Amino acid sequence: MSAAVAGVQLGVAQAGIKKADHDDLVVIALAPGTRTSALFTQNTFRAAPVQLAEAYLAAAEAQPRYLLINTGNANAGTGEAGIAAAADCCEALAQLTETDATQVLPFSTGVIGELLSAEQICAALPAALNDLTDEGWECAAGAILTTDTRAKLRSIEVELDGQRCAITGIAKGAGMICPNMATMLAFVATDAGIDAPLLNDLLSAAVQASFNRITVDGDTSTNDAVTLSATGQSDIEITAGSEYAEHFAQALTTLMIELAQDIVRDGEGASKFVEIRVTGGESEEACDQVARTVAHSPLVKTALFASDPNWGRILAAIGRAGLDDLDTDAVSIHLNGVLIVEHGARAGSYTEEKGQEAMASGDLLIDIALNRGDAAAVIWTTDLSYDYVRINAEYRT
Amino acid sequence: MSAAVAGVQLGVAQAGIKKADHDDLVVIALAPGTRTSALFTQNTFRAAPVQLAEAYLAAAEAQPRYLLINTGNANAGTGEAGIAAAADCCEALAQLTETDATQVLPFSTGVIGELLSAEQICAALPAALNDLTDEGWECAAGAILTTDTRAKLRSIEVELDGQRCAITGIAKGAGMICPNMATMLAFVATDAGIDAPLLNDLLSAAVQASFNRITVDGDTSTNDAVTLSATGQSDIEITAGSEYAEHFAQALTTLMIELAQDIVRDGEGASKFVEIRVTGGESEEACDQVARTVAHSPLVKTALFASDPNWGRILAAIGRAGLDDLDTDAVSIHLNGVLIVEHGARAGSYTEEKGQEAMASGDLLIDIALNRGDAAAVIWTTDLSYDYVRINAEYRT
Repeated sequence: MSAAVAGVQLGVAQAGIKKADHDDLVVIALAPGTRTSALFTQNTFRAAPVQLAEAYLAAAEAQPRYLLINTGNANAGTGEAGIAAAADCCEALAQLTETDATQVLPFSTGVIGELLSAEQICAALPAALNDLTDEGWECAAGAILTTDTRAKLRSIEVELDGQRCAITGIAKGAGMICPNMATMLAFVATDAGIDAPLLNDLLSAAVQASFNRITVDGDTSTNDAVTLSATGQSDIEITAGSEYAEHFAQALTTLMIELAQDIVRDGEGASKFVEIRVTGGESEEACDQVARTVAHSPLVKTALFASDPNWGRILAAIGRAGLDDLDTDAVSIHLNGVLIVEHGARAGSYTEEKGQEAMASGDLLIDIALNRGDAAAVIWTTDLSYDYVRINAEYRT
Repeated sequence: MSAAVAGVQLGVAQAGIKKADHDDLVVIALAPGTRTSALFTQNTFRAAPVQLAEAYLAAAEAQPRYLLINTGNANAGTGEAGIAAAADCCEALAQLTETDATQVLPFSTGVIGELLSAEQICAALPAALNDLTDEGWECAAGAILTTDTRAKLRSIEVELDGQRCAITGIAKGAGMICPNMATMLAFVATDAGIDAPLLNDLLSAAVQASFNRITVDGDTSTNDAVTLSATGQSDIEITAGSEYAEHFAQALTTLMIELAQDIVRDGEGASKFVEIRVTGGESEEACDQVARTVAHSPLVKTALFASDPNWGRILAAIGRAGLDDLDTDAVSIHLNGVLIVEHGARAGSYTEEKGQEAMASGDLLIDIALNRGDAAAVIWTTDLSYDYVRINAEYRT
């Protein structure tokens, strides 16, 4: 199946922002009639393109026609000059395509704190426009990467009463990954027709179940953004409350979870993919709190890297997660199905050999039962390796 | 000046818990009349010795006469068997010294989740008792270490109206360091006479200003404990509200800050000592929140390791620290006196050369001004290096 979505064309170019001889500029063209919904980072220091894209979306009468993405420079922490640079890029693309600047949404990723060269981007725009094609998803998925090692492209076909529509998305991640609303960057499109309020609802719900459930390093980016565009060029029209809407929402959530997990698997220095599932809490928030505390613990993460079933560190992280009146004797933990902790201490049936065997897998499920309620939460994360330190120590060199 | 404190003797021995041919057992003997105050970890999963020491302190009519410390095994996550093992050790020492078991406070540090061998410890107790001497502080400081590379021993002499008293303390740290009450482990003693309520107050205030201000990896230990013993064997008697009390409190706080900073400097894999000072917040809690978010950011920590003035990561961490309505334009940051950020973006006067020069120092001061209030907070921390990953990946091998 092709990833193509009727009404969406993608083109890439080299603006020289990231490195010489690397695609670092992407233009996504959306056909007239396409509706776009977007979510942005909750970090208070929001990058210039995030501020601008949000303002354009809120103010514009007309729907966005272009998404303009560069890598190599996040255009964050750049003050008024950064806003001006992003606006200049949007204006230039608008002139070339005879649209309004507010119909161009800008996105950036890369180093924080360096001024973005609007000149370099504007100079590369004609090449990107010239490259526009329905089949451009793969090239675009490659061109938005920074320290990522693999492109993240997912596509799903939805069949509803014999009609078909496509949902395709691309994402980048790697570092500064602890999305709070959305991760930097994901662009998803469908050729179904979806009205604006429903589009927002669908995006929010899917993001909550996907990108907002992952963390690599606990550092929420200044540039997180995810968009969902519906071109309406298939025969499917999705309306709120319909059976279609539920079916579509499931497919969209599945696709976003796949993209989110792709980001974790390609997290900076990641050698493990770890699902942390916390059950039996008094609330989803409490379970989430425990899962994130375990996921962010450098001691747990380094033990995961070493494939060391050092469950005491998991226990210590649960103990400092801030739950009121936690009954430690009620806590049990399974690692890939092996019972390692029961009644808050090493399980009687546990052996170091069983633990070693379970830890040897590249995919780990840490299942924590609090046994104090009915709520649950899941977080996907990675280990902490030498390569994480290397990548981030050498990032600007 | 000798570190000796009249009324305090220390002895060490090899129980074979940590490694062959390493001191791993310490007995601290306190003269009759000594009052001891202690603070323990707030981690819900409290180690067996923490539970027992707290219970003994609360229940006992008589003041503690012995502190019994082992390294190599934390006796945490060990359930009822762990409590029994700790109690057996206390009982054995009580019999040898003709005291009550509740007058022996147990402390453990090392691997979590393995049962402590009471037999090995009991067998080594006579050797430790035989080794007791006023001059034992240095040997004891060495024997309580785990992955620490240097002993942490600090001593201060306080002169009050021509009379003198000593305050001496030892500590260990290295990993799982984000004390919440106190860090694993610190033992401080003075030959001043101090009544029980004042002793508690002095300890709480000094710990709040010292051990509770440091973090290596954000992981609060299951075994944190700090004690303060006052033997009353000098001519100085300190009473609440007196001029002496204030003078003594200052000296005690200074000593505890020195020990706390020693722990940070010897943090696992640490190559930098970093003070993060946040000023201009609406409350001390808000400033503390910002300082800790920056201190725990893996991206900030790896940039510090690389001596890379990547101030954008500091900005991003401040932005996700959860402050309501933060005016990012008001934020400025100095790095070792160099203005790097003003009005929420790179300072006009900043150059990469100035940043590189400031970052080259082993001691860094990151001074963050929020400019929204009068409160301030400070946190001491380290960078995140390859060695941190190595030490914690190989910890149990």
